[in-house]
Amino acid sequence: MKAAIVGYGNLGKSVEKVITASQDIDLYGIFSRRAKLDTTNPVFDVAEFEKHAKNIDVAYLCLGSATDIPTQAERFAKATNTVDTYDNHHYVPQHREEMDKVARESGHIAVVSTGWDPGMFSLARVYASAILPNATQNTFWGPGVSQGHSDALRRIKGVKRAVQYTIPLEQALEKARGAQAVGLTSYETHRRQCFIVADEADQDRIRKEIIEMPDYFVGYQVEVNFISEEEFLRDHTGMPHGGHVISAGEAGGTNHLIEYSLKLSANPDFTAAVAVAFGRAAYRLNMQGQTGARSVLEIPPYLLHPQPIAELVKMV
Amino acid sequence: MKAAIVGYGNLGKSVEKVITASQDIDLYGIFSRRAKLDTTNPVFDVAEFEKHAKNIDVAYLCLGSATDIPTQAERFAKATNTVDTYDNHHYVPQHREEMDKVARESGHIAVVSTGWDPGMFSLARVYASAILPNATQNTFWGPGVSQGHSDALRRIKGVKRAVQYTIPLEQALEKARGAQAVGLTSYETHRRQCFIVADEADQDRIRKEIIEMPDYFVGYQVEVNFISEEEFLRDHTGMPHGGHVISAGEAGGTNHLIEYSLKLSANPDFTAAVAVAFGRAAYRLNMQGQTGARSVLEIPPYLLHPQPIAELVKMV
Repeated sequence: MKAAIVGYGNLGKSVEKVITASQDIDLYGIFSRRAKLDTTNPVFDVAEFEKHAKNIDVAYLCLGSATDIPTQAERFAKATNTVDTYDNHHYVPQHREEMDKVARESGHIAVVSTGWDPGMFSLARVYASAILPNATQNTFWGPGVSQGHSDALRRIKGVKRAVQYTIPLEQALEKARGAQAVGLTSYETHRRQCFIVADEADQDRIRKEIIEMPDYFVGYQVEVNFISEEEFLRDHTGMPHGGHVISAGEAGGTNHLIEYSLKLSANPDFTAAVAVAFGRAAYRLNMQGQTGARSVLEIPPYLLHPQPIAELVKMV
Repeated sequence: MKAAIVGYGNLGKSVEKVITASQDIDLYGIFSRRAKLDTTNPVFDVAEFEKHAKNIDVAYLCLGSATDIPTQAERFAKATNTVDTYDNHHYVPQHREEMDKVARESGHIAVVSTGWDPGMFSLARVYASAILPNATQNTFWGPGVSQGHSDALRRIKGVKRAVQYTIPLEQALEKARGAQAVGLTSYETHRRQCFIVADEADQDRIRKEIIEMPDYFVGYQVEVNFISEEEFLRDHTGMPHGGHVISAGEAGGTNHLIEYSLKLSANPDFTAAVAVAFGRAAYRLNMQGQTGARSVLEIPPYLLHPQPIAELVKMV
C-alpha cells in the first residue's frame, strides 16, 4: 500500500513517523505548499497532487479542521482514497455526507473523523451504548494540554512561558463509574493546572488574573504553579493527553461498568497511529469494490490490522 | 426483529431479560429439551425448532461451549441466523469455519464467540494492536468468580459453602500499564481469594489443604476467609466478573496506553447484553444479503446499535 501525506504540521510529521515504522505501508511522498521541508522523504507541491494520484493508494489529510478540511478535503477524495481527522463533532455528519458524494462519484473510499475523539472514543461510546442502551455515559478529557487555555495564559502580561493541563476530577470519575454523574457540568468534572514561567515580582498579580479570568478559569478548581524556565523546558513542552469514556448501566437486572481509557505521551503521535490504521481499511474496502465515505463506526475492526483475518481469529 | 432463545440455563435466562427490556426485539419463544420452564414466555420443544424457523430472525444459542455448541450449533445455523458465545479460544477459528460453511449454504449469518472474552476483549485487543502494532498487551481477569476453583474448594472435607474470586494484582496491573509485564506468569498477575463456610474445628485443616492444593492454589497469593452462612448467602452468591485489556506501546516515537476495563455485577447478564447486540448485526447483515459466519472482528460497530447510522454519526 502506497501512502501520501497532505500537510506537514504536527500531525503530518507524526503520520510520517508511524508510516516509516509500519511494515505494510510505503510512503510515496509528502504534499505541502512549502517547497522545502525538513525531511528525507520526497516532497511535492500540493498543487500537483492530481498528477501523482495514480501512484497513491491512500492520502492522509493532515490538515486543520477549522478551515482546511471543510474547503480542501473533497479535492483529494476526487483523486484517491482518503483518511482525515476532522474533529468538529457538530459537523461530522455534514462532512461525511459531502465526502460521500465525491468519493462515490470518483470511486474512492473516504474515512472521516479518525483519531481518538472523534475516533476511538466514538467507538467506545457506540459499542457501550449498544450493549447497555440505558447506561449513563460520560467522557472525560485529560490529563492533557489545552491549547486554548495555554494561549489565554500567555496573553497575561509578564507570562514568559505557560501551559495549562485539563485534569479530570477523581471524585467525578468515581461518580461516573457509579452511574451518578448525570448532568455534571465541566466545572464539576475537570480541574485546571497551570505551569508558568514569570518574574517573582509579577507572580501574585498573574495568579490573581488567572483565577479571575472569566470563561477560561472562573468557576473551576485552578492550580497555579510558578516554575523555572529550565523546569518548563524539561517537563512541559510535550503534548500529553488522554481521557476516559465511562459507561455505567444495567442489563439483565444487574449493573455493569465499561471503561475505555487512553493515556497518551503525545497527542499527535497517537492520533496519527489511529489514522494510519484506518488508512489500511480505506484501501482494503476500496479493493473490495466499495466506494463512499465511512465513519469509524462503519468499518469492520479487522480491516485496521496489518495481519489478515485468518491470523486475527486465532487471537479472538 | 423476532428472536428465539435456545437453551435456558443462566445465559438463556439473562438473554430473555435483555430481550424483554429491548424495544426493537420481540421474543418469539424459548426452545428447550424440558417441557416446562419457569417463564411466562412461550416455550417450545427444541426438537421442533425447524418448524418454527421461518418465524425467527435470530436464534440466540445459549448452550454450553464444552459439548453443546460443537455438536449442535450447525443445526440451528441451517435454519436461521444465529449468535453464540462459544468461548473455547483455541477452537474459535475451527468453529467459525464450520459455521461459515453451513450458514453460507443455507443463506444465513452466524455470529460466533460473542460475549466479553471472547467478544469485547477480543475487539479491545485487535483495535489496540492495530493502532500500536508493537505494544505489550496483557489481559487480566477479575475480580470474578472462578467456577473451577470454587468447585475445588467444595471438594475439601468439611467445606459447606465456598467461592473463589480471582483478583488481578495491583502491582501487575501497574507493570502492564508501564509496558513492563512481558512474560509474567499467572502467579505474578493474579491472587486468589476464598470465602468459606465451615465449622470452626475444621478451619485450620481446611486452610492448610487449600494452601497446599497443587495446580489450583500452590504458587499463588491465597487469602482464606471463613464467614458465616448468613454472610455467604448475603454477599457471595452473585456472579461478578470483569477485567482489563491493557496495551502499552510506542507510536511516532512516544509511548501510549490503551486500557479497556469491565466491572460486571453478573457475568451472564453482561454476556447476554453483548450477544443480544450482535444479534441485531446478524439480522441486519442478512437483510443486506450477506451470508456466512462472522467473528466480532468482522462486524461494523454501528450494526450492533438500536439507532440507525444517521443518528449515530451525530454522536461521533
